[in-house]
Amino acid sequence: MKILITSGGTREAIDQVRSITNHSTGRLGKEIAETFLKAGHQVSLVTTKSAIKPNIHPNLTIMEVSNVDSLQQTLEPLVKNHDVLIHSMAVSDYTPVYMAGIKEVADVENIYDFLEKKNTENKISSTDDYQVLFLKKTPKLISSIKKWNPNIQLIGFKLLVGVSKEELWAVARDSLKKNQADYILANDLMDIKVGQHRAYLIGKDTEIQLETKSQIAQMILELVSQRKEF
Amino acid sequence: MKILITSGGTREAIDQVRSITNHSTGRLGKEIAETFLKAGHQVSLVTTKSAIKPNIHPNLTIMEVSNVDSLQQTLEPLVKNHDVLIHSMAVSDYTPVYMAGIKEVADVENIYDFLEKKNTENKISSTDDYQVLFLKKTPKLISSIKKWNPNIQLIGFKLLVGVSKEELWAVARDSLKKNQADYILANDLMDIKVGQHRAYLIGKDTEIQLETKSQIAQMILELVSQRKEF
Repeated sequence: MKILITSGGTREAIDQVRSITNHSTGRLGKEIAETFLKAGHQVSLVTTKSAIKPNIHPNLTIMEVSNVDSLQQTLEPLVKNHDVLIHSMAVSDYTPVYMAGIKEVADVENIYDFLEKKNTENKISSTDDYQVLFLKKTPKLISSIKKWNPNIQLIGFKLLVGVSKEELWAVARDSLKKNQADYILANDLMDIKVGQHRAYLIGKDTEIQLETKSQIAQMILELVSQRKEF
Repeated sequence: MKILITSGGTREAIDQVRSITNHSTGRLGKEIAETFLKAGHQVSLVTTKSAIKPNIHPNLTIMEVSNVDSLQQTLEPLVKNHDVLIHSMAVSDYTPVYMAGIKEVADVENIYDFLEKKNTENKISSTDDYQVLFLKKTPKLISSIKKWNPNIQLIGFKLLVGVSKEELWAVARDSLKKNQADYILANDLMDIKVGQHRAYLIGKDTEIQLETKSQIAQMILELVSQRKEF
């Protein structure tokens, strides 16, 4: 099978020296890639510069992206010619629009006007004591995957922080439905430590609890391989 | 001599999954550290997790920091017992205070009220189309160095983006005076490419143009070693 995996975290530039980054080491994506390679599959890994990467392998292709925009451009053609997408990347929710000193913001009548503005400086000046950064939501790429390729198996990821198992499962089920995913890997940052990575693989009729990155990778391989079409 | 070097870029957390980061590979700091080690000096390197680091060496101690707060706590005691500080780290200018949906911000009478607020969520919700992030200036650590140790030799760094040489020099001279630095290494991001790193070492009576990381490291070593007290 042709397996597409995303890993690492995207970054959205504020200016040429500062970004908003989503934390993600890329370790889980690496483990998943290596597990599928070992099972004989072709793996395309879309990742970021700072993410931990698998060793080179004849069946592995690695592509680097930086922000949501470059992720979309890279992902769309790939989704169309792969059988499975395992989307473990931490994708930025918001991207910077405009940054201003707080006085400038306090003085306007309509703060929505700032959403039309753009910083022209390469490095935004840092003389104000307080600054205000306006951000807009990035497009949710995961909701486009099945439009780009209705036949792809989609495994989405949901990371929350410090919530109950019930809330985590509810958010995962919601994402499963909304994005027509086959499975959602739901995990809580509080349950991820060295040597431990508790997660739940949530499908239409599936709820599997896993305790390590290696278990997660093995179970995804198993579930993906079960699909009859392949 | 006991040489203290900082490298890499700090990050300030927005919540537990997002940060504002300052780009810096740590490559120049690594080069400077290795140059001083080769010349027989003791080197303490304060750096960040993702920065590129020198190989281990019996005269090298490496300490990791994350944000400006942890940098200050680590740096202050070290500044007091080192002879030289080469401060090449890209330190965050601003740190997040509060993040809110734009409607919440548009509806208040006094936006300065947000500077007193704190997000209590572990992961700030992402349902709004637009968000507003309030940031406050971080303390300028470089201005405290000579207060912590009046005898330390201080080499500060100034990175601008796409400015004229005149502007770059003026900013460097200003920083030299304001922070009682011995030298400021002034550089422009536009002049940093693979194999090239144009920079100016600006001192009271010095203006030296350099073209590579290795030249920069060598010249800093030379200037620092000239001081008669040692």
